Amino acid sequence: MRSLTTSPLMAPEGGGAMPTNIDTLCINTIRTLSMDAVQKANSGHPGTPMALAPVGYTLWRDVLNYDPANPLWPNRDRFVLSIGHASMLLYSLIYLAGIRDIRPGGVSNDRPALTLEDIEQFRQLDSLTPGHPEYHHTAGVETTTGPLGQGCGNSVGMAIAEKWLAEHYNRPGFKLFDHHIYTMCGDGDNMEGVASEAASIAGHLKLGNLTWIYDSNHISIEGSTRIAFTESVHKRFEAYGWHVLELKDANDTGDFRRLLAEAKAETSRPTLIIVHSIIGWGAPHLAGTAEAHGSPLGVEEIRETKKFYGWPEDRDFYVPDGVAEHFQAGIATRGAAASKAWDELFAAYRAKYPAEAAQLDHIFAGTLPEGWDRDIPVFDADAKGVASRASSGKVLNEIAKNYPWMIGGSADLSPSTKTHLTFDGAGDFQPPQWGGTYGGRNLHFGVREHAMGSISNGLALYGIRAYCSGFLIFSDYMKPPIRLSSLMKLPVTYIFTHDSIGVGEDGPTHQPIEQLAQLRATPGVTVLRPADANEVAEAWRTLVQITDRPSVLALSRQNLPTICRKTYAPATGLAKGAYVLADADGRPDVILMATGSEVGLIIKAAEKLKADGIKVRLVSMPSWDLFEAQPKSYRDSVLPPDITARVAVEQAAQLGWDRYTGLAGETIVMHGFGASAPAGQLEVKFGFTVDAVVAAARRQAGK
Amino acid sequence: MRSLTTSPLMAPEGGGAMPTNIDTLCINTIRTLSMDAVQKANSGHPGTPMALAPVGYTLWRDVLNYDPANPLWPNRDRFVLSIGHASMLLYSLIYLAGIRDIRPGGVSNDRPALTLEDIEQFRQLDSLTPGHPEYHHTAGVETTTGPLGQGCGNSVGMAIAEKWLAEHYNRPGFKLFDHHIYTMCGDGDNMEGVASEAASIAGHLKLGNLTWIYDSNHISIEGSTRIAFTESVHKRFEAYGWHVLELKDANDTGDFRRLLAEAKAETSRPTLIIVHSIIGWGAPHLAGTAEAHGSPLGVEEIRETKKFYGWPEDRDFYVPDGVAEHFQAGIATRGAAASKAWDELFAAYRAKYPAEAAQLDHIFAGTLPEGWDRDIPVFDADAKGVASRASSGKVLNEIAKNYPWMIGGSADLSPSTKTHLTFDGAGDFQPPQWGGTYGGRNLHFGVREHAMGSISNGLALYGIRAYCSGFLIFSDYMKPPIRLSSLMKLPVTYIFTHDSIGVGEDGPTHQPIEQLAQLRATPGVTVLRPADANEVAEAWRTLVQITDRPSVLALSRQNLPTICRKTYAPATGLAKGAYVLADADGRPDVILMATGSEVGLIIKAAEKLKADGIKVRLVSMPSWDLFEAQPKSYRDSVLPPDITARVAVEQAAQLGWDRYTGLAGETIVMHGFGASAPAGQLEVKFGFTVDAVVAAARRQAGK
Repeated sequence: MRSLTTSPLMAPEGGGAMPTNIDTLCINTIRTLSMDAVQKANSGHPGTPMALAPVGYTLWRDVLNYDPANPLWPNRDRFVLSIGHASMLLYSLIYLAGIRDIRPGGVSNDRPALTLEDIEQFRQLDSLTPGHPEYHHTAGVETTTGPLGQGCGNSVGMAIAEKWLAEHYNRPGFKLFDHHIYTMCGDGDNMEGVASEAASIAGHLKLGNLTWIYDSNHISIEGSTRIAFTESVHKRFEAYGWHVLELKDANDTGDFRRLLAEAKAETSRPTLIIVHSIIGWGAPHLAGTAEAHGSPLGVEEIRETKKFYGWPEDRDFYVPDGVAEHFQAGIATRGAAASKAWDELFAAYRAKYPAEAAQLDHIFAGTLPEGWDRDIPVFDADAKGVASRASSGKVLNEIAKNYPWMIGGSADLSPSTKTHLTFDGAGDFQPPQWGGTYGGRNLHFGVREHAMGSISNGLALYGIRAYCSGFLIFSDYMKPPIRLSSLMKLPVTYIFTHDSIGVGEDGPTHQPIEQLAQLRATPGVTVLRPADANEVAEAWRTLVQITDRPSVLALSRQNLPTICRKTYAPATGLAKGAYVLADADGRPDVILMATGSEVGLIIKAAEKLKADGIKVRLVSMPSWDLFEAQPKSYRDSVLPPDITARVAVEQAAQLGWDRYTGLAGETIVMHGFGASAPAGQLEVKFGFTVDAVVAAARRQAGK
Repeated sequence: MRSLTTSPLMAPEGGGAMPTNIDTLCINTIRTLSMDAVQKANSGHPGTPMALAPVGYTLWRDVLNYDPANPLWPNRDRFVLSIGHASMLLYSLIYLAGIRDIRPGGVSNDRPALTLEDIEQFRQLDSLTPGHPEYHHTAGVETTTGPLGQGCGNSVGMAIAEKWLAEHYNRPGFKLFDHHIYTMCGDGDNMEGVASEAASIAGHLKLGNLTWIYDSNHISIEGSTRIAFTESVHKRFEAYGWHVLELKDANDTGDFRRLLAEAKAETSRPTLIIVHSIIGWGAPHLAGTAEAHGSPLGVEEIRETKKFYGWPEDRDFYVPDGVAEHFQAGIATRGAAASKAWDELFAAYRAKYPAEAAQLDHIFAGTLPEGWDRDIPVFDADAKGVASRASSGKVLNEIAKNYPWMIGGSADLSPSTKTHLTFDGAGDFQPPQWGGTYGGRNLHFGVREHAMGSISNGLALYGIRAYCSGFLIFSDYMKPPIRLSSLMKLPVTYIFTHDSIGVGEDGPTHQPIEQLAQLRATPGVTVLRPADANEVAEAWRTLVQITDRPSVLALSRQNLPTICRKTYAPATGLAKGAYVLADADGRPDVILMATGSEVGLIIKAAEKLKADGIKVRLVSMPSWDLFEAQPKSYRDSVLPPDITARVAVEQAAQLGWDRYTGLAGETIVMHGFGASAPAGQLEVKFGFTVDAVVAAARRQAGK
């Protein structure tokens, strides 16, 4: 055990007797609840809550602007526990603060967010206290955390959202938005690349409304951080342009209050407060060791730790009288006054700025503005066509124009992904110090795909309709936040262009193969790969209306013919995931199906087959998940079970297609990596030709 | 265009006439070849080769210890072009250096690696000059690059490998390994989290054999780096513990030579040389602009640029007389002497240290040591069983003990992934400055999954048998290097534990669902999910013998019964991907199939079904890709086409299972995210029970 620093909380008042200092009582309540809950669950992470209890307590009780009775109050300070494994710290704070069970998404119960019984049910089936904090699941949890670094990225998105809302909606005398975002992170977060990316962009954007509290406990799972992490985090954050402070002793609540005030006063840079702590503080044998991180301390160690705290050794889940009251006398009193004042301010704002207030209502509720879809274009049939990334850029601009809080950007690829908003007033999001404004709607993420996704989740947590973009291959760099978008039911739109070997000359490192499969396999993600400009328009129309999960748009680099919708079925069929684009006269001999750029290919093949007297049904399948959500009757109407002669064509991995071709059908897909050459030549090399489709169709049809 | 700095290469000698300085001729040859190749391909990235030609030229001609006649010479300096899009810089250097066409993997042709004709075929089908450099494809390419940040990570792995080889195999008087690794990276690399992670661990490990040359051109695709990247990279790298130098003008070859000498002289820290350059240097209208990055300059701009260089304006792919000779008089003369001296040294070493030399032969050839498998254990049947992560840890130790250059580690999870090598002499890889040794075989990657994968690829490029480990869910953080392992045919072993909802209390953020599907969809990756300890042993036996692609082991957190192999078929069936574990007496009424932890479940279900008189065939399917590689006759023998009553059970996403169940079969899989609770309760919640399997089997069997 590392030597404990001297601090007011070191020595309990009076040998073994309960301390009388109420702050100490509160802090040790958090510590012992955390120890007890982990012990009872026989699983969890006690050491960090024990170390950071004074920090969490001070921040929440004395500083955080938060109304426990109104946990969705829009101008509340946000608290992000990026070290999600320390969930018992957060649950203890939620419990002591007396947060009510009011959650995003409309759940509202007349009860506390967490009772002591809920805490006793830590990590149990269907309890309100899962192993890692889950957004939607527990009131007071601002974002789902656990995968390290993600909370850091989310908090940068939140800080961007706060700045953007303030710039757009504050008016003289009406400071609707002026809150702060606090993030607790650890050594693990600060080793993760996503947190580095997020910190770099936060420094660039000069997000003075953001404070990261970094728990530097010098312990990682494999032992001391000296085995792998000896950089100066202090100097690194200074290099990013952050304001960096150090708290020498996590137990020194007075010093921490002072540093928090310094952080708040520094409005032109984000602040990092490095907190020097001892993991498992107070545990006589395990404090300062990796063993205190991720396992229960054990009954005897807990007993001795409680003795050290001056706590009754045999009482579990013990909350001394007055602790909750004292805690709430801080946060709740302060928060209630502030949120009431804000409600009055917003009422006056509404009277003076009804249009802006109405927009805010939508943002807070996650609903769509009237007329958002009024300018979605219809594209004329065109054999030469247009790349779906280009038609998407047009549609995006026409929607965003009428959807004022739809904002987003790219990881340094907007000229290629066509995601720049070009209409008057769209502008760039940049800090005033760089001569810009926080009101811009185009975000420049830099070459930071992972942070881009994580930041987009943070934006979406504020009701901003966020989109982000890159090449489909680089979705690999941002899989963790895509997954979290789904887990949190956030309607982030991921625009992924250059979606196949159609990339051409850039070669196999840039040509996605397995990416569609991996996104389709991810629960709750709607994947759309539209076939032409009108399917692109319908894809946007569909995905904007999906407000409870993320969407992925897979778009082509190359031109795609705009299908004549007089000859073929309307693109509105996209909303059902798959639809019959053209049918045979009578029972089809074979069904040809494809997505995206390959729909044009099966259309050409069908023309040839038809000329040869073979009856073909053409099916466009832009979204498997939307198709799976249809009733069986519809699915069977598109793919009748008795027609087993089927060919599927997609420039992607085979995985999953058997569901639609059946074992008797055929697939024309990619069986390995792509290659570097002009796209047209790659299509021949890899067998995506009219002749190949015709030959497969004939085999299937037996003709 | 930004103002051009004054430099010796600024003004061509004599207005418009060819410069006579041979260095300038060489440099401008690289520039014009790059411009011409991109223009002819009508695709590519001319600006960076133009900017960095003096840097590349100086490094290769005057410093790099490399024998073009012997490009696989083990002690050669390594050059990594992390900015893979600047491939024409590398191709020009390979061409001018006269590297012979000798590639890893045994390809050896009596011709140059690249001819001028090959360069004229830049980015064309089946040419030797693909859009991004590809390992195996072009001699002289040390690693496949393009996805930003990956080359940086690879180079850290290479530097670790060099240190490890030197520590293990150098002897007094025999410095077999004392080379340097040079990496060219750009703004994009330095925004990517993976490069941050790699830089942090390189600083910790004090890799003095590593130099990154950072092209700071202040331009990104969306415009000036001022829109998103304003941190001090200089200070950030100092914070990591790097030695940081600046080259004020990319054209100042003398100063660059001096800095390279300083980098080489600093042996206790890695060095970053920040090169201030102007993208597209010399192009009158496009230099210093984003337009010079990723598109051909255009015929007229090229003409004017050539005029500026004093180049014949109408000659494409022009290589003045004497240029190649001058280039080779540097690198080839130096390299030939050095590699010859090394060959003699190694011959003397072999005489004195035959055992060590024999090991090195294996390392250089990528072959296995004799007796590597002699201690693979056999596990006794055991109903209580053992977690497959634990049996894997045992098997790994028994193999690594007999496989001296098998090294690896974990992203701060080795106590959980059970990957620590515990036998005598295994030790930790740590720098002497931290009191350790570079000879250790346990790598501590820190919480840096992405860099871990990228570093492992670098190790594998040296013939080190690398493995790395983490939780399966966090394979999401390292997908890009897994893909590159496959693209480069590198036998990296990815050990992913905690492979299902069996994770239990940690909840949905930690429970993989779609990860198996995404890894199975990735071309060339062997995915193994063994069912018990003996399948674990066979999985290791199988994957170690696979030396041309990566393998993924998916392992359980929880105990799995060790199947009685007297009652059930031997685990050696694993090598074929799927095998009949137990068959019915007569034609089966139903086939039950599963992988990993769910095999135990179908065994229990089969017992019950058998008692009820239903004939069951049990199939264990640890590896789909190995199964797919079997002849149809074998596959049909395991899953006879006429038996369509089938049930598949796997605690993962459904995607892909239809291939084995057919449309008539059933799957018991995960249809959404997991939850936080003890694993046993989750199995009930999500339907992984004997009763559920029995019910499905009965439905299928119609009994």
